[in-house]
Amino acid sequence: MTVVYAGVEKWRKISDRIDARMSELLPPESEVPGALHAAMRYAALSPGKRVRPMLCLAFATACGADDKVALDAACAIEMVHAFSLIHDDLPAIDNDDLRRGRPTCHKQFTEAIAILAGDALFALSGEIMLSTGNVEACKILAAAVRRLVQGEMLDVLSEGQEINPETLRFIHVNKTGALIAASCAIGALLADAPPELVAKATEYGEAIGLAFQIADDVLNVEGDPSQTGKSVGSDAERKKATYPALYGLADAKAKALELAAEAEDCLTVFPGDVEPLRALARFSIERLH
Amino acid sequence: MTVVYAGVEKWRKISDRIDARMSELLPPESEVPGALHAAMRYAALSPGKRVRPMLCLAFATACGADDKVALDAACAIEMVHAFSLIHDDLPAIDNDDLRRGRPTCHKQFTEAIAILAGDALFALSGEIMLSTGNVEACKILAAAVRRLVQGEMLDVLSEGQEINPETLRFIHVNKTGALIAASCAIGALLADAPPELVAKATEYGEAIGLAFQIADDVLNVEGDPSQTGKSVGSDAERKKATYPALYGLADAKAKALELAAEAEDCLTVFPGDVEPLRALARFSIERLH
Repeated sequence: MTVVYAGVEKWRKISDRIDARMSELLPPESEVPGALHAAMRYAALSPGKRVRPMLCLAFATACGADDKVALDAACAIEMVHAFSLIHDDLPAIDNDDLRRGRPTCHKQFTEAIAILAGDALFALSGEIMLSTGNVEACKILAAAVRRLVQGEMLDVLSEGQEINPETLRFIHVNKTGALIAASCAIGALLADAPPELVAKATEYGEAIGLAFQIADDVLNVEGDPSQTGKSVGSDAERKKATYPALYGLADAKAKALELAAEAEDCLTVFPGDVEPLRALARFSIERLH
Repeated sequence: MTVVYAGVEKWRKISDRIDARMSELLPPESEVPGALHAAMRYAALSPGKRVRPMLCLAFATACGADDKVALDAACAIEMVHAFSLIHDDLPAIDNDDLRRGRPTCHKQFTEAIAILAGDALFALSGEIMLSTGNVEACKILAAAVRRLVQGEMLDVLSEGQEINPETLRFIHVNKTGALIAASCAIGALLADAPPELVAKATEYGEAIGLAFQIADDVLNVEGDPSQTGKSVGSDAERKKATYPALYGLADAKAKALELAAEAEDCLTVFPGDVEPLRALARFSIERLH
């Protein structure tokens, strides 16, 4: 099953292309111990929204290139995302049993396999990114991963603590925002876009990344688990730092709307088709209505 | 405390240079959540032998370059090694309490911090390698990490199973050999050595990597924990696949001697000083007497 965006059904095709290429890029069973092979595929090809690789492809298009120049990088980005989800879900970290509507990787396999499958996906993503030959794009991805891990760490350390706006911002900007902004920048870079377009792509990514994170937090309070694939109220149970917890539901929703509008404003300077990026900015908040 | 090689005391200076540079390359506390910062430094700067970064520097010298061209890459390699040790020691994997004579990272901090400190060190190593601008060296390191993880996975899956020579070889060649061989190759690459020297460096690394692994397995059976920094007999307790378990102690030792001699034979073609590499080949087996 591939999740289909409300109003963005044509994106299913793109998602299928990403999955088909990821399937080719994942190492064959002859090279990898069986359980690790299965776990890497389970996690990387699990039914997700593929927001990050889609952003990467969409920015290659927006910059006027054929999006196939960014396909392998997009797959590398999704593998990094899969790696981060596997580790975040571990019992020692978020202890989640459910992810994308299925058992989390350590539930489906074992903790040992999940830890190592995450590590292997991260290493593989590096190999794939390096094969694009774009060193700048590789640097952006590596830096984004470290920021993602730093954000996750502060998130874990803040559980059950008094949260302040600065801490919450650090968590969101790093844990979710960094990889999303990197996805946008990498798509532009692989399209050989000039620095000012790479910067605008990053700006769009930062805004939409925060919009998505706030929307996810809101959905964790009031969402339908059959839609979100996650348990409802799990953040509150663990006293996690979230926008709704700090600002209340109404203000959190308003902030998400504002960010989505900011993201849309970034799109005017691109020479290519930006409609999918406009649709995604709207989708990020549509779920909140 | 830095471990000093028997008969190779001058290498202490090199080890101190590596640690001083790692200390500079690790991110400042202002950038990283406190516990993650402490855990990254605890693991990366813990008292180890620094074999991999030393090999990297020594092959830059052997290829006729000033070894400072390889210093940052050597630090990146040691950070990768530290990441792999943190994850291998986790309760779900090898469940070790002691590493390099100190509590393992998850014992000193928490499991969550240890998992994320490993991830952060891996990401940082990628950033540092990319800063060298040598894409080939970056590719070799990323591929080595994936092989390392694959070797570790088969090691974990083989615990308590009947082991055969083929499985044992896959584990050793990938889990330990890949990163050691990569360290040698990367040192040669950063010295702008021709492909035939890079290949010889790799060959030396493969031989010495296997010699070290066999020696470590032997020391796990009959070593002194005050020397090895690890519990004695822990492999046998977990029925791990090892050379001594499969071939017996005497044959395992003989194999290590043979590999060390093979490694020394590789050194004749290098234009620069190879004495430290010769000493290291001897050290790999000296511990066994």
